Amino acid sequence: MSNYKHILLAADFSRHGLAVAERAKDLANLYQAKLSITHIVDNLVTMDMAYEPSIAYDFDLSAELMASAKNHLSKLADQFNIPENQRWLEIGNPKMEIVRIAEENQADLIVIGSHGRHGLALLLGSTANGVLHHAKCDVLAVRLQNDD
Amino acid sequence: MSNYKHILLAADFSRHGLAVAERAKDLANLYQAKLSITHIVDNLVTMDMAYEPSIAYDFDLSAELMASAKNHLSKLADQFNIPENQRWLEIGNPKMEIVRIAEENQADLIVIGSHGRHGLALLLGSTANGVLHHAKCDVLAVRLQNDD
Repeated sequence: MSNYKHILLAADFSRHGLAVAERAKDLANLYQAKLSITHIVDNLVTMDMAYEPSIAYDFDLSAELMASAKNHLSKLADQFNIPENQRWLEIGNPKMEIVRIAEENQADLIVIGSHGRHGLALLLGSTANGVLHHAKCDVLAVRLQNDD
Repeated sequence: MSNYKHILLAADFSRHGLAVAERAKDLANLYQAKLSITHIVDNLVTMDMAYEPSIAYDFDLSAELMASAKNHLSKLADQFNIPENQRWLEIGNPKMEIVRIAEENQADLIVIGSHGRHGLALLLGSTANGVLHHAKCDVLAVRLQNDD
């Protein structure tokens, strides 16, 4: 067993997501590890929007989503002193993109928020579950509070 | 976010399980947290045995499984200086028992080994996935090596 060297924070910008970021930062400090951050804009969400009647409107909305996500990512990354070249914003299937980014950048620990069991997550499993299922490295699922 | 205070190691005694125990111990040291250990003998395995023709034989085998598990648990717990009253050996559904023990003992982090995706785990999800799905606390899934 070696110390963690590169921790990847899978950020979701939810109300309780800050605790996940704090845990990732804390572990990076304890292990003197590099801390990176990623956020994936779910393409199911953007595809959903594409089914709406006005394509032009939806295109703007998708771009707006990305711009908003970029803004959130920058703020969070700045707050935790994560350098520009260790920030990844993507559109896609969140679990697969998180796993891909972790592999491509040799992260040895993914830190991700984990929601309570309700709604769709109860049936389909959460992103955290999907990441755990597919990741080749360790995964820390931080239970989000006030969420059950 | 507060420091972890009580880490529960879900031990599986597999060939690579030692790395999981080492990670749990390491985190307990870093966080000055209490470290406990549990192992669940899967009741599906013991039930499978009950379908064999000789019940008397199977009963012995189940008792033997428990005795063997107790032996493994003691050795591992001794190795990591886990006191007697922080060791739990149970028969049942592993994911549900691990989650129950974590809750009953106010563990705030479960450390568990995570196997690669193959065989039944690919279809049904691993114990680690089940624990993550049901746990009310954080879960660290340690990827077992040479397992994919």
